[in-house]
Amino acid sequence: MILVRQEIGDVLRDFRLQKGRTLRQVAGKASVALGYLSEVERGQKEASSEILASVAEALDVPISMIMREVGDRISVLEGIQVFPDVVPDDLVASIEPELSLH
Amino acid sequence: MILVRQEIGDVLRDFRLQKGRTLRQVAGKASVALGYLSEVERGQKEASSEILASVAEALDVPISMIMREVGDRISVLEGIQVFPDVVPDDLVASIEPELSLH
Repeated sequence: MILVRQEIGDVLRDFRLQKGRTLRQVAGKASVALGYLSEVERGQKEASSEILASVAEALDVPISMIMREVGDRISVLEGIQVFPDVVPDDLVASIEPELSLH
Repeated sequence: MILVRQEIGDVLRDFRLQKGRTLRQVAGKASVALGYLSEVERGQKEASSEILASVAEALDVPISMIMREVGDRISVLEGIQVFPDVVPDDLVASIEPELSLH
């Protein structure tokens, strides 16, 4: 079973690391207990909508960006790819001559 | 404050109505109490990840589609539009002659 909290936790941790912040810094800024945030990041606790909003603000990341990233990651788990990540090789080969005209 | 549960509730209700199903049908199929699902749809209760997975399955909608729709709606609330919903009128006018060639 795909658990949304697991993906939310991963995404929150990835954004935090990407911004070079510690759990302590984000927890402090978001007024959330450090242990709680750590459990949320590990997918062990559901974050309430209020906590999610506080953490997103503390990370300077829009909630929409977090939820879209969560949706994208779950789509990979579900085996659904609405938009391909890469252009297929044979398509690239077929349009390369045209591209080289520019 | 933007609350994710409010958007999740709206999206779940919209998918349910789009599929022409009643609260009772979906709650029964998802093995969730009808009153609880109703509260989730109205944004009054946080749905756990397990409940969300059950309801998504009962609706025959991938969780990723629900989360992406939630992300899209929140982005509108946040005033962020990564991808414009409509093509600007002046752009349409500028390419219409080309389109009419086909």
